[in-house]
Amino acid sequence: MASTPSSSSSSGGARKRRGHRVTRRAALGMMAGGAAAGVVGAKVGLKSSSGGELAAVANTLGLNGPQAEAALKTFLPGAKYDEYFMMSSGGHSGQVFVIGVPSMRLLKVIPVFTPESWQGYGFGTDQGNVVLTEGSDPTKSNPLTWGDTHHPALSETAGDYDGRWLYINDRANGRIGMIDLRDFKTKQILDVPNIQTSHGGCFITPNSEYVHISSMTPAVVATKGYTYTPLSQYKDKFRGYSTWLSIDPKTGRFDMAKSFQIELPPYTQDLADAGKLTSFGLGFINSYNTEMATGGDMPGGPGPLEATATKNDYDFLHIIDWQKAEQVAKTGKTVTLNGMNVIPLDVAASEGILHFAPEPRNPHGVDVSPTGDYICVAGKLDPNATVFSTEKIKAAIANQDYQGKDPFGVPILTFDSVVEAQVELGAGPLHTQFGPDGHAYTSLFVDSAVAHWRLGEKAGVPADQAFKLVEKLPVQYNIGHLVTAEGDTVNPDGKYLVALNKWSIDRFPPLGPLHPQNFQLVDISGTKMQIMKDMPIGNGEPHYVQMVHRDKLKNVLSVYPPGTDPMTFKASPFATVAGKERVETSGRDVHVYMTAMRSHYTPDQIDVKVGDTLHLHITNIEQTPDATHGFAIPQYNIEASIDPGEVVNIDLPLNREGNFAMYCTEFCSALHLEMQGWLNVSPN
Amino acid sequence: MASTPSSSSSSGGARKRRGHRVTRRAALGMMAGGAAAGVVGAKVGLKSSSGGELAAVANTLGLNGPQAEAALKTFLPGAKYDEYFMMSSGGHSGQVFVIGVPSMRLLKVIPVFTPESWQGYGFGTDQGNVVLTEGSDPTKSNPLTWGDTHHPALSETAGDYDGRWLYINDRANGRIGMIDLRDFKTKQILDVPNIQTSHGGCFITPNSEYVHISSMTPAVVATKGYTYTPLSQYKDKFRGYSTWLSIDPKTGRFDMAKSFQIELPPYTQDLADAGKLTSFGLGFINSYNTEMATGGDMPGGPGPLEATATKNDYDFLHIIDWQKAEQVAKTGKTVTLNGMNVIPLDVAASEGILHFAPEPRNPHGVDVSPTGDYICVAGKLDPNATVFSTEKIKAAIANQDYQGKDPFGVPILTFDSVVEAQVELGAGPLHTQFGPDGHAYTSLFVDSAVAHWRLGEKAGVPADQAFKLVEKLPVQYNIGHLVTAEGDTVNPDGKYLVALNKWSIDRFPPLGPLHPQNFQLVDISGTKMQIMKDMPIGNGEPHYVQMVHRDKLKNVLSVYPPGTDPMTFKASPFATVAGKERVETSGRDVHVYMTAMRSHYTPDQIDVKVGDTLHLHITNIEQTPDATHGFAIPQYNIEASIDPGEVVNIDLPLNREGNFAMYCTEFCSALHLEMQGWLNVSPN
Repeated sequence: MASTPSSSSSSGGARKRRGHRVTRRAALGMMAGGAAAGVVGAKVGLKSSSGGELAAVANTLGLNGPQAEAALKTFLPGAKYDEYFMMSSGGHSGQVFVIGVPSMRLLKVIPVFTPESWQGYGFGTDQGNVVLTEGSDPTKSNPLTWGDTHHPALSETAGDYDGRWLYINDRANGRIGMIDLRDFKTKQILDVPNIQTSHGGCFITPNSEYVHISSMTPAVVATKGYTYTPLSQYKDKFRGYSTWLSIDPKTGRFDMAKSFQIELPPYTQDLADAGKLTSFGLGFINSYNTEMATGGDMPGGPGPLEATATKNDYDFLHIIDWQKAEQVAKTGKTVTLNGMNVIPLDVAASEGILHFAPEPRNPHGVDVSPTGDYICVAGKLDPNATVFSTEKIKAAIANQDYQGKDPFGVPILTFDSVVEAQVELGAGPLHTQFGPDGHAYTSLFVDSAVAHWRLGEKAGVPADQAFKLVEKLPVQYNIGHLVTAEGDTVNPDGKYLVALNKWSIDRFPPLGPLHPQNFQLVDISGTKMQIMKDMPIGNGEPHYVQMVHRDKLKNVLSVYPPGTDPMTFKASPFATVAGKERVETSGRDVHVYMTAMRSHYTPDQIDVKVGDTLHLHITNIEQTPDATHGFAIPQYNIEASIDPGEVVNIDLPLNREGNFAMYCTEFCSALHLEMQGWLNVSPN
Repeated sequence: MASTPSSSSSSGGARKRRGHRVTRRAALGMMAGGAAAGVVGAKVGLKSSSGGELAAVANTLGLNGPQAEAALKTFLPGAKYDEYFMMSSGGHSGQVFVIGVPSMRLLKVIPVFTPESWQGYGFGTDQGNVVLTEGSDPTKSNPLTWGDTHHPALSETAGDYDGRWLYINDRANGRIGMIDLRDFKTKQILDVPNIQTSHGGCFITPNSEYVHISSMTPAVVATKGYTYTPLSQYKDKFRGYSTWLSIDPKTGRFDMAKSFQIELPPYTQDLADAGKLTSFGLGFINSYNTEMATGGDMPGGPGPLEATATKNDYDFLHIIDWQKAEQVAKTGKTVTLNGMNVIPLDVAASEGILHFAPEPRNPHGVDVSPTGDYICVAGKLDPNATVFSTEKIKAAIANQDYQGKDPFGVPILTFDSVVEAQVELGAGPLHTQFGPDGHAYTSLFVDSAVAHWRLGEKAGVPADQAFKLVEKLPVQYNIGHLVTAEGDTVNPDGKYLVALNKWSIDRFPPLGPLHPQNFQLVDISGTKMQIMKDMPIGNGEPHYVQMVHRDKLKNVLSVYPPGTDPMTFKASPFATVAGKERVETSGRDVHVYMTAMRSHYTPDQIDVKVGDTLHLHITNIEQTPDATHGFAIPQYNIEASIDPGEVVNIDLPLNREGNFAMYCTEFCSALHLEMQGWLNVSPN
């Protein structure tokens, strides 16, 4: 409907009418006199719709200067678009959120690891069902129907976002999902072999050669799935894995034949990042619980992990040479484990693929600076950001400058020989993001603050300002991750920072005991950081976020070409055109080739018998942007969302008789309610 | 952590620092001189963070006067709260959205008919699993795991919102959900007997005596579930039902013993509303497809519904006397059908429970005015709002002023004797909401506009302005429902209107073929309607919304009392306190009484065998607001969210061995990552 003259003209009408008012107002404004007042008048005038003047309106509302400015700067009138998009994990909502910056508006929720009925993802159609089923390791006890999305990774070319694909890990089950940014839909979920939970992922190498995902909780790996082992054998039998998933450069999908894993000691591997530019070819993973504690906090036990896993002053930064690993993976020095090509721990150590560097205890974030020269580690029980030097790491490895080996024979580089600086920031530093010119921003969970500091001269910072704290900005409250505009690429933009606060306490109205999270937009374009806006997150608990400039999203489809299979972006063999709708029966299989358009399905009556299997092939034959149709058979729990040009397939075994309503779930036209039909299932 | 001095002082610090700046700026502002400039300076100043002046900032951003004002008026700094909340259906997302007005921020998503993992709803815990299972009629083919939420109904006392409960219908499956507004969680889903799909619900009577829900697609009702019947017997065998669910005044739950249904002809019953004040005791339901068409749009068939169901010039407004029905339901004149007390159609007609009034063809919305005197029907194929008079309806019924009877013997009131006025509004009128003093606002789907018009003198409108169109405001695009502040109570507030636009086309950036919906905030406080702000809805397709003043939500809990069962709000028999954690085994049932607090579970190791059934009883022993913990056993697909004071129960049959990680999914503290444990399942 919206494409009809009526509606487009009405919006045009709106523009015209507004134009009028402004002109009249401008005239009045000029009569107000005075340069400043003139400007005000010109834009607002004495006869603005509230009869007020702009600053007076701010006055009345009790907004101070920075607040009023933030209100204007984060407001998008009419059809104006945001400059940036945040690709945000949804945490244990199992989804990805797309949020506009600076407006802080939620533009889209992309279902990945959990069914979502609005988009018909996982309610009978091929896309959701196939993706969710393939991604749910059948050797595990139940189908997996949720995930804990943590770290999104946008595909990169030459270390910069290229707008092709988005990867996201499932921290809960050691899985990874792939979203195509042509249609913003999930195309693949891989249940990564040999890892049970994952935190060190995903990150991507600078040319999207690999997506990395490592295990978090070590697991006992047998030839099939998992086997029980007493925790007393933790050190001997449990292992972690660093996984390098090869990316098909055409489809963005995972190429298992070219992928490999590196066996790791049973420490708890935490966050990870990829080297870039000067550190290209290296990967970095934090670890904690090098004590290899397994808890036991009932009377008589050793005590909870928060005590038993925090004894060592230093844990180990894992330094991985993935280019070397790539070569070794092609030799006979690997083993195959659950279909994955695995480099054993001793081989990784002896071949110089894996080195450790001491890092202050229980670190969380490891972040590589834009030039690749600095690796910033934040230890949540240490007030410093510890900055490692790529140059020094390479030298120490070349010189075998070891302070010893860990119990598994992995060489440990001498701390002082690889550390460039330690910068005291405050209590509970977690993650670091970057701006241009060596500006760095670190989240302080305990302090509820963002620390702004400077890197060293390799990042273009004058010696007298190098590795110094610049400023701390309080945030509300208890910040986890943070993000800056393109802040983990080789070309950070600065401008905006978003604090991903885990607690909101009093920032939003009380709506039950479960509070939203608080995304706070911060202006980092000036000399001082300035909070602009709070955004409540009331539908998930995001962890990490990437912020990409809108210009990078070049390939977005507004409609699919007629008859497209969204899984392949090719013409679907099941596509149907108007006039060719038909029912084809072979034995108990009934294939219905259906079209959908405003305001009916053809056919709108389907007659079948109990025991038949219904195969619905539905083509939305519209090519009007936004002309999405739904298709539901509620009593059979079927729900599809079919975009213009899209073909969906539904296989439905008919297990009970009845006359079942079918209807369009997406309000599509004035006669949308008449877009319904009947599935008539007669007794066999 | 957020309750520790560190974080609260840091927020205090933020306030102090900002305070400073404002003072300095105020001083500078005063020196700028000139009243207007003085005001500007006082609030913004020559040294505002951008160095700009407020109107100049608006200039630079290209905002016109109304836009800049809207930016200021919809901006909430710091911990300021919205004046209103919208309780919005999520459409086929199966959820309810809570949105602040005027900020248009999504504050909370409440899962109702579909599992949601962030809140652990439907992933192993008692609340979600029990509610979803009870609400999924086992006589239906599959468990129902999605819904199509359409019309929220806030509980009322004396015709005004009382902030106790929220009801929402599932249009897909003829179900209804109940949410308690103390904790904003779903407490009950009822799969309403005898109805397959539902559109005429839910609405609530002025003192929450009943929640009404009627069928949409007529169905064949047998003694159990549904049976197949040839569509040729549609007129004889298919029926609709108007359902009156009695509400327990203490719990808000449905009391089936006091509930009843009224049998209806197999027309398609559409929207409905409850009479109030002068029309108290009456209920109104629209209908279309009085042609009783069943489609058939393949070659040789009668044609699609959009043609065959739109032939009659008039369909029937159903007028139901629910007080009379309440009395008849207590007599022997009813039948019991699938556990529901049903008044047969002939009894409803003969007892004067059901009357029809002709209404222009294929109407959609029926809305009762605040005083109850006017019933406004909008026919989507008719340009008028048709206004029926309560007084005239009552007189016509009393005088048996009939123009005939329908094929099922239901008396049809004479059109001219019950219609007060017809007001021409434009193309595709759908729904009407109300302001004070007889102001009415009707959505025009085809025109993509809101029509502002006036009711008659019974609503306090001067005769010369009565039933006249005042103004039309273009919206972007194709508006379905609309809402005004408390616009369907006996005391509408005016002030704000929100247009629920179904199409957004170019209003938001292209992020794939599926577009968000567009909620547009409209200022109706002035003489002219003014669009203030667009809000993209990228996670569902809301239908109807209610807008309630924040003062009405008086009973919201910030934490549960220690050891609370959220289903009863009473102390849980499974609650555990610190030091009393224990494991109790009887046969193959292992009961674990666990506590959760920052940063560990006790116990953090659970040793069981394959074949055991694990019964987890987890108490969050915190009483700090926002101290929610998660609890996941990913490989068993278990995910819980446990608010402060809450007790959750999980029954888990152990079907495979392994050492399975358990962890806290809600980032709770600096040592959140250490909040993990082991479920050790050894072979039997």
